[in-house]
Amino acid sequence: MLLSILYIIGITAEAMTGALAAGKRHMDWFGVMLVASATAIGGGTVRDILLGHYPLGWVAHPQYLVITCVAGLLTTVLGKWVVRFHKIFIILDAIGLIVFSIIGCQVAITMGLSPIICVVAAVVTGVFGGLLRDMITRRKPMVLHKELYASVSFLAGIMYITMLHFNVPADITTLVTLAVGFSLRMAAVFFSWSLPVFKFEEAKA
Amino acid sequence: MLLSILYIIGITAEAMTGALAAGKRHMDWFGVMLVASATAIGGGTVRDILLGHYPLGWVAHPQYLVITCVAGLLTTVLGKWVVRFHKIFIILDAIGLIVFSIIGCQVAITMGLSPIICVVAAVVTGVFGGLLRDMITRRKPMVLHKELYASVSFLAGIMYITMLHFNVPADITTLVTLAVGFSLRMAAVFFSWSLPVFKFEEAKA
Amino acid sequence: MLLSILYIIGITAEAMTGALAAGKRHMDWFGVMLVASATAIGGGTVRDILLGHYPLGWVAHPQYLVITCVAGLLTTVLGKWVVRFHKIFIILDAIGLIVFSIIGCQVAITMGLSPIICVVAAVVTGVFGGLLRDMITRRKPMVLHKELYASVSFLAGIMYITMLHFNVPADITTLVTLAVGFSLRMAAVFFSWSLPVFKFEEAKA
Repeated sequence: MLLSILYIIGITAEAMTGALAAGKRHMDWFGVMLVASATAIGGGTVRDILLGHYPLGWVAHPQYLVITCVAGLLTTVLGKWVVRFHKIFIILDAIGLIVFSIIGCQVAITMGLSPIICVVAAVVTGVFGGLLRDMITRRKPMVLHKELYASVSFLAGIMYITMLHFNVPADITTLVTLAVGFSLRMAAVFFSWSLPVFKFEEAKA
Repeated sequence: MLLSILYIIGITAEAMTGALAAGKRHMDWFGVMLVASATAIGGGTVRDILLGHYPLGWVAHPQYLVITCVAGLLTTVLGKWVVRFHKIFIILDAIGLIVFSIIGCQVAITMGLSPIICVVAAVVTGVFGGLLRDMITRRKPMVLHKELYASVSFLAGIMYITMLHFNVPADITTLVTLAVGFSLRMAAVFFSWSLPVFKFEEAKA
Repeated sequence: MLLSILYIIGITAEAMTGALAAGKRHMDWFGVMLVASATAIGGGTVRDILLGHYPLGWVAHPQYLVITCVAGLLTTVLGKWVVRFHKIFIILDAIGLIVFSIIGCQVAITMGLSPIICVVAAVVTGVFGGLLRDMITRRKPMVLHKELYASVSFLAGIMYITMLHFNVPADITTLVTLAVGFSLRMAAVFFSWSLPVFKFEEAKA
């Protein structure tokens, strides 16, 4: 299944970005594995906890956790290589974002939840891994500041459930959502599209 | 039902304070909606996850999530107005604190949990929204430092379950808890009542 | 039961270290109780939420929560005493680490989970309390930097399930894991054993 292959590629790439963030904070190998795993499978974990969808993906399939830990540890050796090919990682990260969003939608649909919650599940799955990474490594949360990221996840979720609603076959829905979502994210990176920022300065605190 | 109306007022006001905190960190619209929602419904979410009380309130009633997101986005336009009327927000926040505490108690009572856990549920519901807001926006957690806040939630929880224990009718219990809790919180703000602070300096680290 | 007695000693000691961390941040009594409880029973709470193991330990047995709150408040009075005897706390913390790890394993085994997840449950139970403490008090997460800590929990988990797998009686397995894990942790402190650290500096951000 295409989605499974892309999912494994996605968690591997996300785990590597998590490991780099841990390296910038001079964490030890355990910290590297923790941040790598939180980045890669934290979004799905938060989604499942919010929806009460047990067992969690990595509890039922511990091999995913093994993949993210190994990818994290490999990054401690291959760090410079990862940075040199960082353009590939932008592409892999975009694939991961859309795959995670689609899987999030699917889980919520399977549970019979309302369309709003399906879209929320897409965004949580796509975005919370990076958010957890930035909270553990105490960085400014990237997903809340940089180019369209959560919004792409949001639109991918809406597209996915809308197409299913109009009885488009599931395979075609997945492929079209992947293609459109990926293109949108790459365009956002390329053209630096971003959401308006809310700057608020308190005159008197 | 009075409590439902006050609950909607409460989450709207809390969402707005969350949006202002996001604005101080120059977050984009997605960040504003995230922090607004975490502030308003994060306390109930943490409580339900701790108690295993599924589905979560906003998963069963997505309209609450829509309210907090809209309130957050409106704040990006009305920010200055919100600050000008900040005294109203202190009042709305106090109402929200007591309403959240009462609802937290009710959930735990419905699940047949022990009185201690009912009071804990009240405090978690009342306090964790603000705590999540301060953790995501990386501020000093207000609820752990400023005037009586968690303590008011604690006392409201104790009052609520004590009155029910002595067979006071539920409506009267709710109204009295609201009145006393609200007054206590306003008095704490007005007179700057606060819990003793534990200052600990390590001689040799 | 030995394990129960050691568990109560462990959460008391962990609660006290949490209270000291809260004191360094000048938190009020509520903050002290919150950080003390998160440190002492946060690891088990995160484990149970991840595994979907309800009700949580302290919800079913609120007396544990009372112990951690009282221990936290006592520390506000006895802070200097706690520091003077900090060597005892290193010993109690090591006992707590192994007891928490064993209990984490036992919970996962009871749920019929795979060996990998049993070891993960051990590490989460042993380590996440300290991680939560450091996140709430906004400190550099100690467990991701200092001498072998998570690794000791990891090895204790592997030893425990391996011995059970080879039909060693449960009591003996527990005692041997306690003795070896405790010795390993104390040796790590004494000889400053630590995991390799991953230092990654980004040439161009």
